[in-house]
Amino acid sequence: MAGNSIGHTFKLTTFGESHGEAIGGVIDGVPSNFNLNLEAVQLELDRRKPGQSAIVTQRKESDSVRFLSGIFEGKTTGSPIGFVIENENQKSKDYSHIKEIYRPSHADFTYDKKYGYRDYRGGGRSSARETASRVVAGAIAKQFLKFLGIEVNSFVSQVGKLKLEGDLTQISLPKEENIVRCPHPQMAERMIDYIKAIRKEGDTIGGVVFTRITGVPFGLGLPVFDKLHADLGKAMLSINAVKGFEYGSGFAGVEMKGSQHNDIIQSDGLTATNHSGGIQGGISNGNPIYFSVAFKPVATIMLDQESVNSKMERVKVEGKGRHDPCVVPRAVPIVEAMAAITLLDHYLRNKMTQI
Amino acid sequence: MAGNSIGHTFKLTTFGESHGEAIGGVIDGVPSNFNLNLEAVQLELDRRKPGQSAIVTQRKESDSVRFLSGIFEGKTTGSPIGFVIENENQKSKDYSHIKEIYRPSHADFTYDKKYGYRDYRGGGRSSARETASRVVAGAIAKQFLKFLGIEVNSFVSQVGKLKLEGDLTQISLPKEENIVRCPHPQMAERMIDYIKAIRKEGDTIGGVVFTRITGVPFGLGLPVFDKLHADLGKAMLSINAVKGFEYGSGFAGVEMKGSQHNDIIQSDGLTATNHSGGIQGGISNGNPIYFSVAFKPVATIMLDQESVNSKMERVKVEGKGRHDPCVVPRAVPIVEAMAAITLLDHYLRNKMTQI
Amino acid sequence: MAGNSIGHTFKLTTFGESHGEAIGGVIDGVPSNFNLNLEAVQLELDRRKPGQSAIVTQRKESDSVRFLSGIFEGKTTGSPIGFVIENENQKSKDYSHIKEIYRPSHADFTYDKKYGYRDYRGGGRSSARETASRVVAGAIAKQFLKFLGIEVNSFVSQVGKLKLEGDLTQISLPKEENIVRCPHPQMAERMIDYIKAIRKEGDTIGGVVFTRITGVPFGLGLPVFDKLHADLGKAMLSINAVKGFEYGSGFAGVEMKGSQHNDIIQSDGLTATNHSGGIQGGISNGNPIYFSVAFKPVATIMLDQESVNSKMERVKVEGKGRHDPCVVPRAVPIVEAMAAITLLDHYLRNKMTQI
Amino acid sequence: MAGNSIGHTFKLTTFGESHGEAIGGVIDGVPSNFNLNLEAVQLELDRRKPGQSAIVTQRKESDSVRFLSGIFEGKTTGSPIGFVIENENQKSKDYSHIKEIYRPSHADFTYDKKYGYRDYRGGGRSSARETASRVVAGAIAKQFLKFLGIEVNSFVSQVGKLKLEGDLTQISLPKEENIVRCPHPQMAERMIDYIKAIRKEGDTIGGVVFTRITGVPFGLGLPVFDKLHADLGKAMLSINAVKGFEYGSGFAGVEMKGSQHNDIIQSDGLTATNHSGGIQGGISNGNPIYFSVAFKPVATIMLDQESVNSKMERVKVEGKGRHDPCVVPRAVPIVEAMAAITLLDHYLRNKMTQI
Repeated sequence: MAGNSIGHTFKLTTFGESHGEAIGGVIDGVPSNFNLNLEAVQLELDRRKPGQSAIVTQRKESDSVRFLSGIFEGKTTGSPIGFVIENENQKSKDYSHIKEIYRPSHADFTYDKKYGYRDYRGGGRSSARETASRVVAGAIAKQFLKFLGIEVNSFVSQVGKLKLEGDLTQISLPKEENIVRCPHPQMAERMIDYIKAIRKEGDTIGGVVFTRITGVPFGLGLPVFDKLHADLGKAMLSINAVKGFEYGSGFAGVEMKGSQHNDIIQSDGLTATNHSGGIQGGISNGNPIYFSVAFKPVATIMLDQESVNSKMERVKVEGKGRHDPCVVPRAVPIVEAMAAITLLDHYLRNKMTQI
Repeated sequence: MAGNSIGHTFKLTTFGESHGEAIGGVIDGVPSNFNLNLEAVQLELDRRKPGQSAIVTQRKESDSVRFLSGIFEGKTTGSPIGFVIENENQKSKDYSHIKEIYRPSHADFTYDKKYGYRDYRGGGRSSARETASRVVAGAIAKQFLKFLGIEVNSFVSQVGKLKLEGDLTQISLPKEENIVRCPHPQMAERMIDYIKAIRKEGDTIGGVVFTRITGVPFGLGLPVFDKLHADLGKAMLSINAVKGFEYGSGFAGVEMKGSQHNDIIQSDGLTATNHSGGIQGGISNGNPIYFSVAFKPVATIMLDQESVNSKMERVKVEGKGRHDPCVVPRAVPIVEAMAAITLLDHYLRNKMTQI
Repeated sequence: MAGNSIGHTFKLTTFGESHGEAIGGVIDGVPSNFNLNLEAVQLELDRRKPGQSAIVTQRKESDSVRFLSGIFEGKTTGSPIGFVIENENQKSKDYSHIKEIYRPSHADFTYDKKYGYRDYRGGGRSSARETASRVVAGAIAKQFLKFLGIEVNSFVSQVGKLKLEGDLTQISLPKEENIVRCPHPQMAERMIDYIKAIRKEGDTIGGVVFTRITGVPFGLGLPVFDKLHADLGKAMLSINAVKGFEYGSGFAGVEMKGSQHNDIIQSDGLTATNHSGGIQGGISNGNPIYFSVAFKPVATIMLDQESVNSKMERVKVEGKGRHDPCVVPRAVPIVEAMAAITLLDHYLRNKMTQI
Repeated sequence: MAGNSIGHTFKLTTFGESHGEAIGGVIDGVPSNFNLNLEAVQLELDRRKPGQSAIVTQRKESDSVRFLSGIFEGKTTGSPIGFVIENENQKSKDYSHIKEIYRPSHADFTYDKKYGYRDYRGGGRSSARETASRVVAGAIAKQFLKFLGIEVNSFVSQVGKLKLEGDLTQISLPKEENIVRCPHPQMAERMIDYIKAIRKEGDTIGGVVFTRITGVPFGLGLPVFDKLHADLGKAMLSINAVKGFEYGSGFAGVEMKGSQHNDIIQSDGLTATNHSGGIQGGISNGNPIYFSVAFKPVATIMLDQESVNSKMERVKVEGKGRHDPCVVPRAVPIVEAMAAITLLDHYLRNKMTQI
């Protein structure tokens, strides 16, 4: 009810504020008797970590996860996995200058109105720091998916107006070879340069993360309200700064005719085209699933802005601190995590379809 | 778990297949002691009904709803509202020609794979006929929202390439004056002509429904996973044929800089711009909420297509029957219904924030 | 949230008031591709029906169920099963004499206080008439359980002070041979005579229903909060007039020492004794599950009583109308239904334990 | 789905095994803007702690709780409260002697069968150590209830055959003055002596905890499945070693006639008698709520027993280690905690009843 959980069978509940003692979570419904690679979890956290490259925030957090339960001698027991990531910098910084200020396009104002009280340090619960806990659960989900032959790959397809064109589902995915996480080397370079220029301006820019999921069996997803793409969409829209979600033909599909858009099923069960994005009637059809997620420009900028304080008096918000000039490079592992959690959840839910 | 419910406090569960005995649902968590206008519910159903105009399917169903419980002498009792809409045509039609055929871009194949069995008549549970039950619950939710001063208005903003330009949030909304439900009279005429042409071709076309919600108080929505826009997005993506959802600046916001995108809060608490779409950190901020929903072209076309049968042999699917050449005119009340259900659910959830 | 649903995977939501249009429900999560015997469902309803014998209420309702969805040509489709039971007598009776009266030990007062409004006709939503919908879902659950080799049998073990002694788990269960549903013929006769005498007094009496579930596989139930017996207990306590639940050794087990109470596991995996009632740590261990449910005397009596009206003025409540002198004979199929729903729900939930 | 959460609005999810790194939990839905007394939480943990007196286990754990989130400068923020209690002794003990053994009336066998793998150290997840996390959440719930004027008091009413007689609801409750937590001084002494004798035998004994809740407003609880007493019953049955639950007249009420059992409502809205236990139709009626919970004798005894190992070979289980001879003294704060969680959850749920 209070919104800090996602998933039904494989279920993540997170806790923690940007500058509290620690963040963490509980993963319930982890299938038992499965060997987990805990180092792989840390590697996923490292992909999301601040300070990892020249185009992300230069804050330093080691973001090392400590597992407290649910794993015994390397194997899952079926009991919930509790974990924490300590907040190392929580006392080092003075946030008193924003204590009474509602920053533009941040959640300061809405939290204060809703809760009557707020932890103002670094955005408190509204900070994207919370997504580290999602990456932990996602990294675990990925290991189950891998065992099932399902692979989730995300990459940056757009930064500002710099946009990969063509059929993104056909791009071959080498290992992540650049800091912006775009698989097209020339475009990646242009994106990196652009983000650096944006940073120099003290400004920020939006972007798009594209995701392709392969190896999905038939039958994941449920009709009516819990359609697979509806749950994927909700999972993506729950990520900080996301403004849009489209799958398959998406918004472009609007301009197509039915005779063009319909995917002809072939005798191997796969479809000749895949405008449906691997999902029919909310249920996976065995073709790759793909979708795009739009991120707005980060709200924290290095330029002075006008706003109001908690007495609704006009004030100036100073541009200072460390921030991401563009969120999408660090968002890639978060998008993958949310996709993996959703897929595994539906994989388990699908087990109950027949007696 | 099986995906036929939406909402947490104000909760709709639907049942029924396209050509079964009846469709219907149960609405649980209806606030008590409230006068309901049951005729207004029927009027909303009439907005969605087949056969209502020259640009929608010519099937005939009266779609009259019968309420079975939860209302006593015109007032809600707090007990669940059960309702049914009889399927009048369920025995009149012979569906044996598609019994063994998987139609392209329909859910025939995925249902068969998932459930091992399916009601093939008119798409069974996957038919958009189910959305009539959503309109019933939405029409009830709207009455509570109206009491709270919240208004939900949707309209058609795009059909194929015909697209309303400019700031859609500024369009004044007269009563629905045309059958395509586009508030711009000239564009409406072009859309109607275009849909008629498409129908003549035996083809179908996609479209976009735009929604604006006004009078929303501060504080609806929850942080982290149940952000207000995440739940709106899921609700919209659960509607048949939807391929995308964006709110506020949406996909276009990707190309903006933070300094442009940030909404400056003014001394009245409202923001100078509203790129955020009325939601910050998942919580309503008092500004209008607005979003767009992309619908693909309807899969049923009047042209012959190739496909496979249940033995995975290649077959021809004949183009026959009655269908919608473009789904968006009838989708308008469905989008409004899903938005209303989501808003009322979050209104009630918000009551638990403080003791 | 509003409390009209039970189960997680196999989930029943009910609606309907005693004297509204109809009662009914939606069963979601019904495993697909399974042949249902719909006549067997009606037979279970007949076991619960008023007017079936001389010791139950003489009200007449045919209680015939109409299935609206989820079943196609006799088989489950995996879509939700909607059903209704029309209220035949809803207009025939005048309830104006209790319109303003709060009857003793009925829910009139609490409903009015909670909801600010109530359907006073025959108790409205608080009437045990609602349990007919549970029997429908239970009768369906039983068919799946039977397929799995699981059998649920309930019988009356106590009426007032008349109590079956000895090890109830050892009683052989012939077909229900008497109207009080007690498997011991002499005791049954005494119970019947006693209930008839109670009825003549215009009074009512309580009783106990004992249940034994055989053929339960290992592993049903979950640790911690959703222990199998905790969910069984909740299911039983949700039945009208229930005041207590005990399983295995129950309240008597309190007086035992650990050395007596411990069930020694034998080499076939079963235990020498079964004080645990077939459940260890919340999880079934393969032995029979058994439990007792205590029902208070029915609140409606034929004797005049004092009470208050809605203005909190003292009034006399006249003893009139038709009622059950003892609820347990008709409660037997309800208890079985709730047990069957809970067992099937946990059977399905158990499927997600391992990948 | 995996059973490690309780509550809908005020919701506790726990994690942790007896001898893992740490136990802990997340409390979601904590009302915001409320001053919490964290020392009072620790005092409740101390009431449950091992080693606190001569009649409980002599294991030593400091059981000190560390709060990680959701509280800022002493006040709740509305964000989830994450907390951990480190397991201090987790490495000190060798459990290899029970690694392959299924102890009688423990969950070793059922966990192994269900999960295919288990953490055998001290019972792993099935250990009652998990209840410390419940006491943390309960202690927080109690503070909200106190603010609302609701008080929950539990005490020991029976140990073995030593049983408090008479109307337990009339017992005046002084501060806990003895280690067995029975409010009758002479009976307390007898119970303490009896437990000491049982311990000397190397055996264990069962008991009953009685609970009275005062100051409950009208309207808590929901009709049909989520009746207040059904949720209380489930909460109690989820506590380790519980075999039965009864509220109001309970099992004794079975022998009463309706004319005796009915509670006559008086002009102040309270009832002359309270056989209903403060709940009518699942909803609180303003009278005190009271119930009893039966605990079996602890399964760990100091006597040798027969059992089987994981190969289903007969083995002897040696009686050694430290254990509770009777669980009820330490169960008192756990019962109170579960009652408080349930009451606060329903208090918040009740807020959505009317618009």
